[in-house]
Amino acid sequence: MAVDPKDVNISNIPYIKDGWFMELNKELWPGQAMGLEVDQVLFYQKSPYQDILVFKSKTYGTVLVLDGVIQCTERDEFSYQEMLSFLPLNSHPNPEKVLIIGGGDGGVAREVSKHPAVKEIVQCEIDAMVVEVSKKYLPNMSKGFSNPKLNLIIGDGFKFMEEHQNEFDVIITDSSDPIGPACVLFEKPYYELMSKALRAGGIIASQGECMWLHTKVIKNVLDFCAEIYPTVDYGFTTIPTYPSGQIGFILCSLNKDTNFKSPVRIFTNEEKEEMDLRYYNEAVHNSAFALPQFVKKELER
Amino acid sequence: MAVDPKDVNISNIPYIKDGWFMELNKELWPGQAMGLEVDQVLFYQKSPYQDILVFKSKTYGTVLVLDGVIQCTERDEFSYQEMLSFLPLNSHPNPEKVLIIGGGDGGVAREVSKHPAVKEIVQCEIDAMVVEVSKKYLPNMSKGFSNPKLNLIIGDGFKFMEEHQNEFDVIITDSSDPIGPACVLFEKPYYELMSKALRAGGIIASQGECMWLHTKVIKNVLDFCAEIYPTVDYGFTTIPTYPSGQIGFILCSLNKDTNFKSPVRIFTNEEKEEMDLRYYNEAVHNSAFALPQFVKKELER
Repeated sequence: MAVDPKDVNISNIPYIKDGWFMELNKELWPGQAMGLEVDQVLFYQKSPYQDILVFKSKTYGTVLVLDGVIQCTERDEFSYQEMLSFLPLNSHPNPEKVLIIGGGDGGVAREVSKHPAVKEIVQCEIDAMVVEVSKKYLPNMSKGFSNPKLNLIIGDGFKFMEEHQNEFDVIITDSSDPIGPACVLFEKPYYELMSKALRAGGIIASQGECMWLHTKVIKNVLDFCAEIYPTVDYGFTTIPTYPSGQIGFILCSLNKDTNFKSPVRIFTNEEKEEMDLRYYNEAVHNSAFALPQFVKKELER
Repeated sequence: MAVDPKDVNISNIPYIKDGWFMELNKELWPGQAMGLEVDQVLFYQKSPYQDILVFKSKTYGTVLVLDGVIQCTERDEFSYQEMLSFLPLNSHPNPEKVLIIGGGDGGVAREVSKHPAVKEIVQCEIDAMVVEVSKKYLPNMSKGFSNPKLNLIIGDGFKFMEEHQNEFDVIITDSSDPIGPACVLFEKPYYELMSKALRAGGIIASQGECMWLHTKVIKNVLDFCAEIYPTVDYGFTTIPTYPSGQIGFILCSLNKDTNFKSPVRIFTNEEKEEMDLRYYNEAVHNSAFALPQFVKKELER
């Protein structure tokens, strides 16, 4: 399946011009674009679900792009992977069994498998080509797939959860934006399905868009989540190569006493070193939920 | 001085191509660029200090650019102005007299003048053309200049401080990046000069670059600050149109008991409404100092 660099015809790639990749999106972030200088295009092909581009950038390492949107760069991906993993895991008293939906680059699997309490991880990714491309071009992310705790299933997360109820302590959704194939992951039926796939006291965390761009989308998700889960919160992390430099997380718990702002597990310095944490620490966990005044107001229920 | 839109020859502006402004800078953020779609160029002229561009963007309002670097956009400027103002002001028990160095757009003056304890503000901006341009094209920022508490001086901040010692409770430096005219504002003599212009227990806050890009510059400043001030800290805020989506602040106090992480003044809800705060609140103040693990390590002394 993989394509040699020499076979890629750069002039066929609409996102690259004059040696720069431009992240344009008229629906999701009109009038703005992150640009990354391209060193070499490594892969460009359409899967049954999306078009997949991998390029080596001049200063951000290898970059994975789906349907024109940056999914990760080697330079800053750790912020997103660590926060999406440890915000929910450290809010749960004993997260033994974890389900990951999406996350085809392997980054979330890599982080979740580091957690001392986690015994078993199931991951459900719909697009086999993303996994294969990541294994070839993003070895530091896809190494998550080789962890013995992980069982990777190529298939539809909806279907998988319908058949696996009352089974997981934590469910993490690492999805692309609510446009195209990932749209359904921002709707109420998906969050209802997750609530049933959780064990008692279970926690979910989902990619939750950017507070500087998408407060309407975020508020909509938080509002229907509050009808399903007794505890709902919104946190964020900084990450240069996501639109506007930040990305947020929807966090919900079946336990009404969960306080996402105050983790129940605090990693020791030795654990942080051993886990090679580069972004997450307890202060960053707490502060992820400190929202700017305009965001607080726009998300008010 | 002002130029009518019809007089501006867009083809002379190196930063605009195919209708997009691109914030390229090979020294400060190689290989990456924020792009903003241009609606109309309003002003482009060289002052004795820098080249000044003002354009109306498609989705970020009016944008001020100095030497090719975005200084502010109407859509997100409040984050920077509020945080640079209230992090130091609310860390001081009674900030009656404030000096602003730079800040020619008027945004910091606008915020500082809102603070209930502030009685007198002196601002020293070197480039008259920035002030004039801002008065014409950025009325919601330059309205800070018309506050009766403010005395605006067009001149050199170094010279002004040499002549005004032991005079200010808080000194705020709203500068551009450490390249060109603002270089000296990131060096030890400037911080020594500020320490002498402060009254006992005085506090300074300076634009402190981005933790995702410039930890070496930041560490250098923090290290020499620790030789001058008993209390030194580094905080940051999120802001989409600054490089990598964040900008930081160098904070120093002559009082060894100052704890920047814990403000001595907390605005009431009524004050926040009256002051029209859109970013700053007490939770955001605390969390501004929660640094990612890699930043903590790189700044360690």
